[in-house]
Amino acid sequence: LTQGLDIDDELWSRWRNEAYRRFVEDIEIGYVDPDIVPLIKLIFSKRSIFSISSCSGRVVAVDTTYPWVREDASIIFKKHSPLTLNELISIINTPIRYRCWIIVSGPILHIVAKSLESATKVLNLARSCGFKHSGIISLRRDGIVLELISGTWTSFLVKELDTVLIDLKHAEKLLKTVNEILEEGKRRLQRLEDALKHADL
Amino acid sequence: LTQGLDIDDELWSRWRNEAYRRFVEDIEIGYVDPDIVPLIKLIFSKRSIFSISSCSGRVVAVDTTYPWVREDASIIFKKHSPLTLNELISIINTPIRYRCWIIVSGPILHIVAKSLESATKVLNLARSCGFKHSGIISLRRDGIVLELISGTWTSFLVKELDTVLIDLKHAEKLLKTVNEILEEGKRRLQRLEDALKHADL
Repeated sequence: LTQGLDIDDELWSRWRNEAYRRFVEDIEIGYVDPDIVPLIKLIFSKRSIFSISSCSGRVVAVDTTYPWVREDASIIFKKHSPLTLNELISIINTPIRYRCWIIVSGPILHIVAKSLESATKVLNLARSCGFKHSGIISLRRDGIVLELISGTWTSFLVKELDTVLIDLKHAEKLLKTVNEILEEGKRRLQRLEDALKHADL
Repeated sequence: LTQGLDIDDELWSRWRNEAYRRFVEDIEIGYVDPDIVPLIKLIFSKRSIFSISSCSGRVVAVDTTYPWVREDASIIFKKHSPLTLNELISIINTPIRYRCWIIVSGPILHIVAKSLESATKVLNLARSCGFKHSGIISLRRDGIVLELISGTWTSFLVKELDTVLIDLKHAEKLLKTVNEILEEGKRRLQRLEDALKHADL
């Protein structure tokens, strides 16, 4: 049984050009995290893939019932580089309505491939660089959408309403862990960039 | 550009039979979490998909540097149902070598589809039931492998070596959060089962 997947080359190219235009614009505005710019440029230099969104990894503090709940959630703090003790204290001192979660996310990239072959190549390459939760999230006429994601995601529940749930005497240990996790994400991003340099895609 | 994806019907059926045999065996041994049995049976009743592995969601306490590090990690505790205060205290009292993380994972299923069409149908259905991080993880000659996963994953760093990092005075608040997260995962599993009942797959 051979199954056809129709991808329209022209639609793919149009989407690619649009994504590239937006990427350049986002750099100018300052939307793009500088840590990820060389990798995205490298991806756009390939024949069979392009990038539609990306994040190099970040620390976020959110006031929400659960980390995945977006309705009525407020971002208290967001940073793409290591958290300082003063920042942590200021997060803890911010009044909240639900729970304060500090979330450290690893890098995430959305890539559009032109063929099943290039999609599979990217998936295998990404997994070998530590992006172990990667997959095809959509098969469309204008391309195959991949999500490249590492498992370096962690949450820390620090407060519920006025009650601080962590032991502040040991805040430095928490801080150190948060920053190590962020750095591990950046290391995997670097590994992906190195591997992509030599990949025929 | 029409791209061929060759799936061998006979190989797919052989894999399906093997997976079904193992599922039945695992039920007998007691390996399968009872919460998920009806859903897996339902999946096996469909023409174009089968299941190769599944978990209904669980609470695990692990001694490891980071949640994703498996080398030299030890499982201190594992349960597919709500955590009790006594269990939490016993986890905290367990001597460790690195860090103690309590990890609450939502349900996860691996499904093998016979065609791109059925794979896409399952993906859309899963996403609509709260399995928002689902994707195709592998395109093989014997089937398209899907990972259905919800975003209801959280970690709680409770200890580093001998240092307890949470405030034990408020352990019940942590416990309540852990169990609510576990329950949310089970709810999404139920939603998936309900939606699958009426799906033509």
